Amino acid sequence: MKIKRIALIGVGLIGGSLGMALKQDRKFAGTVVGVGRNQEKLKLARSLGAVDEITTDIRRGVEKVELVVVTTPVETIAPLVKRILPCIRPQTVITDAGSIKAPVVESVESLTPRPLFVGSHPLAGSEKSGVRHARKDLFKDAVCVVTPTVRTDREALFLVTRLWRNVGCRVVELSPCQHDQWVAVSSHLPHVLASSLVEITARLARKDKRVKQVLAASFMDLSRVASSDPELWSQILLGNREAVLRGIRLFQREVASFARILKEGKGRRVKARLRRGKMFRYSLLREKEDVQR
Amino acid sequence: MKIKRIALIGVGLIGGSLGMALKQDRKFAGTVVGVGRNQEKLKLARSLGAVDEITTDIRRGVEKVELVVVTTPVETIAPLVKRILPCIRPQTVITDAGSIKAPVVESVESLTPRPLFVGSHPLAGSEKSGVRHARKDLFKDAVCVVTPTVRTDREALFLVTRLWRNVGCRVVELSPCQHDQWVAVSSHLPHVLASSLVEITARLARKDKRVKQVLAASFMDLSRVASSDPELWSQILLGNREAVLRGIRLFQREVASFARILKEGKGRRVKARLRRGKMFRYSLLREKEDVQR
Repeated sequence: MKIKRIALIGVGLIGGSLGMALKQDRKFAGTVVGVGRNQEKLKLARSLGAVDEITTDIRRGVEKVELVVVTTPVETIAPLVKRILPCIRPQTVITDAGSIKAPVVESVESLTPRPLFVGSHPLAGSEKSGVRHARKDLFKDAVCVVTPTVRTDREALFLVTRLWRNVGCRVVELSPCQHDQWVAVSSHLPHVLASSLVEITARLARKDKRVKQVLAASFMDLSRVASSDPELWSQILLGNREAVLRGIRLFQREVASFARILKEGKGRRVKARLRRGKMFRYSLLREKEDVQR
Repeated sequence: MKIKRIALIGVGLIGGSLGMALKQDRKFAGTVVGVGRNQEKLKLARSLGAVDEITTDIRRGVEKVELVVVTTPVETIAPLVKRILPCIRPQTVITDAGSIKAPVVESVESLTPRPLFVGSHPLAGSEKSGVRHARKDLFKDAVCVVTPTVRTDREALFLVTRLWRNVGCRVVELSPCQHDQWVAVSSHLPHVLASSLVEITARLARKDKRVKQVLAASFMDLSRVASSDPELWSQILLGNREAVLRGIRLFQREVASFARILKEGKGRRVKARLRRGKMFRYSLLREKEDVQR
């Protein structure tokens, strides 16, 4: 299918960056329509070169497009798909960019017998939000997970895969559930840890503000994602609650085991554990690079 | 006191960077002597412009210098100071760059009635080690904690403070114990968390290696310090064991409390918690910048 018009519902960091990547690197010669509720933000997106046309009328925004990408927070994705279903052409493909997949895919598939929805999750982003932080290279070398089900139309999957590849992603296919299990540990759990580390540090700093002077680079790294959007991330953590809670339990057990070894004071065992972590991380990074190549 | 010669015992990342900062930005017109056990590493340090002279003979290295900086791993600092005490001039000042202070300062002060040792901890570094990763700007805008005691000579403190300021640090004075309490949370705890996150992720990856494909930027940030030197960090964690274990307990309690709120599924409370973390981090960073200005 030849794509002439793409609608982006939501023009924040992800939608804006996708529009920029499509338009500015000439990956896509057609028209990108930005759909949102806030006229000012839409105008900003247009002036930044993220979209060609803008509208706050969701029905008008999607009526003549071949592809719709919903980049709004996870809780809003299924309700938005429901709203646009009566307005789109029969062959229009819909995808999203939500950080959790099983609840979204299940909701959408329960809404309609159309097999033209494909769940997507580009593993790109930042603790910053809003189109003013969008960049055309946000997806370059990122992994995008797509989560087809038995119902998914193969042509639709092909088209969505091509979209993400076009903007620089390596596309990985996983089931929605598998995706949610793994990102619970690799992406959602880090937000819980960062927030908790900041919380205990802030408590110390309330007793003596000089604590703020000894915040090392390791603290900055560990706490960076605590600066993410609370609205977005509370939706993600709650939406993937069971898997996140499982991840937290695994993590707590691991830290308790580390603490036991430390308490025993056996230098060799502490060193062995740190060395294993270092080797694991090296292997994770190396193989991550391998699969991305 | 006019400084003509400085000896760096240990020419790794910290020693090498200190030498480069002193020599390459003309902060110091005198001679920097690199002292170490490995002739090849010393030669590399000299060829990288980190030191002027090199020697594997620790006694000869320190005999005519006005200032000695011991930049070796924490466990070796006090034993090295003991070895050099008989060889240095009466007025030579000694400092270090160890990540824990109370055990080091106590050991050194028990060795000698000289008040010319000042504990230092520049909060700079990286998960990389070795002089080949040294850079002359490693200390630029970093905090360096100095930990004088009632016994410390004021002239020695002044000289050591000037050294770190010269290479770009903001110098903060704390007691050795206060320092160790706070870095247990802001620097040592992050290493335990990073190592544990990597460990549980690696365990998932052993079951299905596709896990490696969904490692998000948040995972990379959170796990970076797991790539640090295991020898160095097992010494630090064990040397500051009580405070680190206390930090772990605080953290475990905080995560458990987060898990409870998540389990209850109250979106408002999860969001409030994330928002508090975001605000706290913002205030920590802002005031950190303030104090550094």
